[in-house]
Amino acid sequence: MNTYLECIPCFFNQVLQAGERSELSSAQVKVMMDAVGDELKRFPLEASPPEMAPTIQKLYTELSGISDPYKSIKDMSNEKALAVYPELKAIVERSATPLLTAVELACAGNIIDYGAHQDVDVSGEILQILSQADAAIAHEERELFAFDAFCDDLSKAKRLMYVGDNCGEIVFDRVLIETIAAHYPTLHIDFVTRGTPILNDCLVEDAYTCGLHHAATIVSSGMVSPGLIMKNASPEFKALFDQADMIISKGQGNYEALSGIDAPIYFLLITKCKVIARDLGSSMRDLILKKQKL
Amino acid sequence: MNTYLECIPCFFNQVLQAGERSELSSAQVKVMMDAVGDELKRFPLEASPPEMAPTIQKLYTELSGISDPYKSIKDMSNEKALAVYPELKAIVERSATPLLTAVELACAGNIIDYGAHQDVDVSGEILQILSQADAAIAHEERELFAFDAFCDDLSKAKRLMYVGDNCGEIVFDRVLIETIAAHYPTLHIDFVTRGTPILNDCLVEDAYTCGLHHAATIVSSGMVSPGLIMKNASPEFKALFDQADMIISKGQGNYEALSGIDAPIYFLLITKCKVIARDLGSSMRDLILKKQKL
Repeated sequence: MNTYLECIPCFFNQVLQAGERSELSSAQVKVMMDAVGDELKRFPLEASPPEMAPTIQKLYTELSGISDPYKSIKDMSNEKALAVYPELKAIVERSATPLLTAVELACAGNIIDYGAHQDVDVSGEILQILSQADAAIAHEERELFAFDAFCDDLSKAKRLMYVGDNCGEIVFDRVLIETIAAHYPTLHIDFVTRGTPILNDCLVEDAYTCGLHHAATIVSSGMVSPGLIMKNASPEFKALFDQADMIISKGQGNYEALSGIDAPIYFLLITKCKVIARDLGSSMRDLILKKQKL
Repeated sequence: MNTYLECIPCFFNQVLQAGERSELSSAQVKVMMDAVGDELKRFPLEASPPEMAPTIQKLYTELSGISDPYKSIKDMSNEKALAVYPELKAIVERSATPLLTAVELACAGNIIDYGAHQDVDVSGEILQILSQADAAIAHEERELFAFDAFCDDLSKAKRLMYVGDNCGEIVFDRVLIETIAAHYPTLHIDFVTRGTPILNDCLVEDAYTCGLHHAATIVSSGMVSPGLIMKNASPEFKALFDQADMIISKGQGNYEALSGIDAPIYFLLITKCKVIARDLGSSMRDLILKKQKL
C-alpha cells in the first residue's frame, strides 16, 4: 500500500506517542518532529507507511539512548496473552468450526490493546470480539473474508509462511498455527518475526517466549520496519518467501507492506485505521481474511 | 498560548483539509506538507499555533491560484446564520436573563459547523447547545465562566473591543453586541475582523454583510493569521487595542493568540480542541467566559 496523505499527520502522532512514553522533554520531541519533517521531503508517497517507522525509532534512540522503548509493554503483552492460552485452546476445541474460530481468535489478538490498561480483561475482550466477529463475518462480502478459499489453499499448500505482527498477539497466532497444523499435518510452517526492535512488533525471542517454536520454524525477517518490506529483504529471506506456496500476512503493518506484492498471500487483520479500511474497501474494525489479487 | 507538540500533527491535518477542499493532486498536497515540514524547523514552540496558518494558506494559494479557499463556505455560513437572526433576537428577548442568554448564543455560534452538512438545522443545533450550556454553566467553576465579573466590568467600561472569529458565528456576536449595547448604551464598541482571507475567519466585508455595523464600529486588525497576534499589529491597531478598557476575545484562535497578553480580556469560546481545553483547565465542549489573569 502506498502512503496516503492521511498517514503523514499520523507519523507525527507516532513521534508524540514515543515522546509520551519517555522522559524526553518537549524540546527533544520537537527535535524529532523537525527531523521527521525533514525526512518527509525524501519520503515518497510511493513508499509504504511502515518505511517511516525506523526513522522515528532511530531518532528516538539517538535522543533517549533507549534502543527498545516498547520492551516492557512487549513483555507484559506476551505474559497477559500467555495467561489466556489455555482458554484460547479450549475455545477452539469446543468449537464446531475450530479453524474458523482460530482465525477469529487470531484477529482478536490483533485488536487487544494490552498496553492501554494495566488491568485489561483479556478473556472478556476475546469473548466480545468473537461475538462481534461472528456478526461481522455473516455480513462480509466473501472477498474480504475468503475463508472457503483459505481452507482450500491450505489443503493444497506444502510450505506456509506466517508473518507475525505484535507481541501478545502472537500467542493467538500460535493457536491458529497449531489448529492449522492439526488439520494439515504434512504442512511445513515458518513463523516470521522482525529482525530488530521496532514498536511492539515481535522478535525471535518473543516467538520462543510465546511457544511458537512448538508449532513452527521461527525465522527472522531481518527487517527493521513494522511490516515486511520485501525490497529490503536479504537474498536468503527472499528465497524462503518465494518457496512458500501460501503466506499469511498478519496485521495492518504487514498489509501496508505486502499489499502490492505478487505472492500467494492471505491478509489476516482487523481494520483499526480508516486509511487501511478504505484501501481494503471495508469498514473500521472489520475482520479481514483477504486473498491477494493483483 | 504556546504551541503544544499535539498541535504539530494538527498542522498537517490542516494541509490535508485544504487539499480535500480543492482540486489539488496528492502530489501537490505532498509538496505543501513537505514545505510545512520544512517550516516546522523554523517554527518555535514559543510561537502560538495560529502563526502557522498563514504559511499553509500561502502555500495553498501558490499551488492552487485560489487566494480565498473558504469563500463559498464563508458566504454560506453568513447566509445560514443571518436566516436565524430573528430567532436569536426572539430567544434573547424572551429570556429572563437576556445578557447571559446572548453570551450563551455567542458560544453556540462558535460551535455550529455550517460547512459540515448542506442541510444543517441551525435552529435545532442552537436549542441543543443552549440546553447543554445551562447544564455546563451550572457546573462550571466561576473562574471558567466569570459572568458576574463580566457584567461588572461591562458596567464600568467606556470602550469595548470585540475580536471576531468565524463567519456565520459573527451573526451570533452581533446579537450579543446588540444586547450589550442595550444594557450599556454609552459604551463604544469596536468589532475587529481579520485583515486578509484566512480559513473561514471574518473579514470587514463579512461584518457588513452580517449587519455588525449597526451595532459596532468595524475595524480590520490587518492580521493574516486566524488569531490576534499582537506582536504583528500595526501601531494604529495597537493604539486602538490599548485604548479599550475591556476586550472580548472570541473563539479558540484568538485565545491561542491572546492568552499570554497583558490586557483586560475576557475569553469567550467553546472548547473544541483537547489542547486548548487542557490549557484552560476545562473539559471538551465547555462554555468558557474567562477573565484574563496574568
